[in-house]
Amino acid sequence: MVHYKATIEYDGTDFLGFQVQAQGRTVQGALEAALRRLNHDEPVRVRGAGRTDSGVHASGQVIDFHLAWARGDGGLLQALNAILPADVALRDLARAEPGFHPRFSATARAYRYAIWNAPARSPLARRQALHVATPLDADAMGVALAHLQGTHDFASFGLPTQGDVTIRDLTMGTVRRDGPWLFVELEANGFLYRMVRGIVGSLLTVGSGAQPPDWMAEVLAARDRAAASAPVAPMGLCLTAVRYDRP
Amino acid sequence: MVHYKATIEYDGTDFLGFQVQAQGRTVQGALEAALRRLNHDEPVRVRGAGRTDSGVHASGQVIDFHLAWARGDGGLLQALNAILPADVALRDLARAEPGFHPRFSATARAYRYAIWNAPARSPLARRQALHVATPLDADAMGVALAHLQGTHDFASFGLPTQGDVTIRDLTMGTVRRDGPWLFVELEANGFLYRMVRGIVGSLLTVGSGAQPPDWMAEVLAARDRAAASAPVAPMGLCLTAVRYDRP
Repeated sequence: MVHYKATIEYDGTDFLGFQVQAQGRTVQGALEAALRRLNHDEPVRVRGAGRTDSGVHASGQVIDFHLAWARGDGGLLQALNAILPADVALRDLARAEPGFHPRFSATARAYRYAIWNAPARSPLARRQALHVATPLDADAMGVALAHLQGTHDFASFGLPTQGDVTIRDLTMGTVRRDGPWLFVELEANGFLYRMVRGIVGSLLTVGSGAQPPDWMAEVLAARDRAAASAPVAPMGLCLTAVRYDRP
Repeated sequence: MVHYKATIEYDGTDFLGFQVQAQGRTVQGALEAALRRLNHDEPVRVRGAGRTDSGVHASGQVIDFHLAWARGDGGLLQALNAILPADVALRDLARAEPGFHPRFSATARAYRYAIWNAPARSPLARRQALHVATPLDADAMGVALAHLQGTHDFASFGLPTQGDVTIRDLTMGTVRRDGPWLFVELEANGFLYRMVRGIVGSLLTVGSGAQPPDWMAEVLAARDRAAASAPVAPMGLCLTAVRYDRP
């Protein structure tokens, strides 16, 4: 048995999220079904770094699994990508370091939220961006986001995935405009459940001019989800990277 | 009755091309059905600048139509985008100049062909790019493409859409790499049927190293489709602009 780790990409549109559920199509389920076919129909357990929600995409999700495979690691990647459905694929594959766990070994995660900010909706962007028809002030959103950088209690923006600690370290946060596109990019040691979508929801309140940038500091200080705006829809969200480097 | 022109965008994946057919879902059909609903169930004829094939996208297709509409042009754009299916939308709408015809008034058309050039396929790019797993030499492809610039008989690369003239003026042709992406961008006064896909097919033969860049000049000179490589698949192709400016 070899312990493998892999970076995977998926179009979350037609998945009910990463994690296997009692019913419905999941990324983990698709990966485990493909691996089972390469394992003489014996089940293979896949673990992921992040449990992305229904409709959320990934270009840099990380998984691990154990498999006995005799035909070379390059051949394994090709075999899996030939079996997997069109909306999920391995980007790379390597041997895992001893004791590697995709979730618990991770030191940082990066997400990108894409917004199509133009009067008319975009059919070509619709599966991977939120459409916001009214003009957004990217500079004001950037100032608002700067209030969240650093180590804070993010209880206003999400729910803990395990236990009750809601303190996270937001190490990077940028708002970038590129024509009609607006990208919110966030990196942290970890994220609460719905935290990225909660932050982007409140950034839209600032971007539309309904609240000034400094309002974000008030929302953060409240440590109450009622203080924040509603989380945005999943289709604009993409898990872009999981990092395992120790400083 | 007002004569309108509009720029439209569509995700061609689930359309059998632009032009109405006896059976199947088309862009023109979707547009005419939406306009009919705004016209007291009376039919409205839509004309397009280019008859894109099944699976081909557009971000800058141009159409025109006649409609009696009393509630403002901005309201018409919004009403149409609210009625149209998710994979087609108007980007802008304006009054047409007297005698305007989206196809015959056009002076130039621009297409982009997108290639995902990486060992592993990309689930997020799969609907809008061709996957080529082996490395492509973008510089060699650019040199090959330069042989096609200017006014030539392009019979090796496509079929005339009307009559038998196969001479076209290719005014712009570039090959651009951006990480795993490769974009071929072409602009001409007009294109033969399958001409962009025919050119890209032969560019791939050069990019893979199977033929030197100068081979492209031989293919052009042959004026014979058997001299060229097979046309590439439609999903990487997008009609990005139609121009009406006279020099």
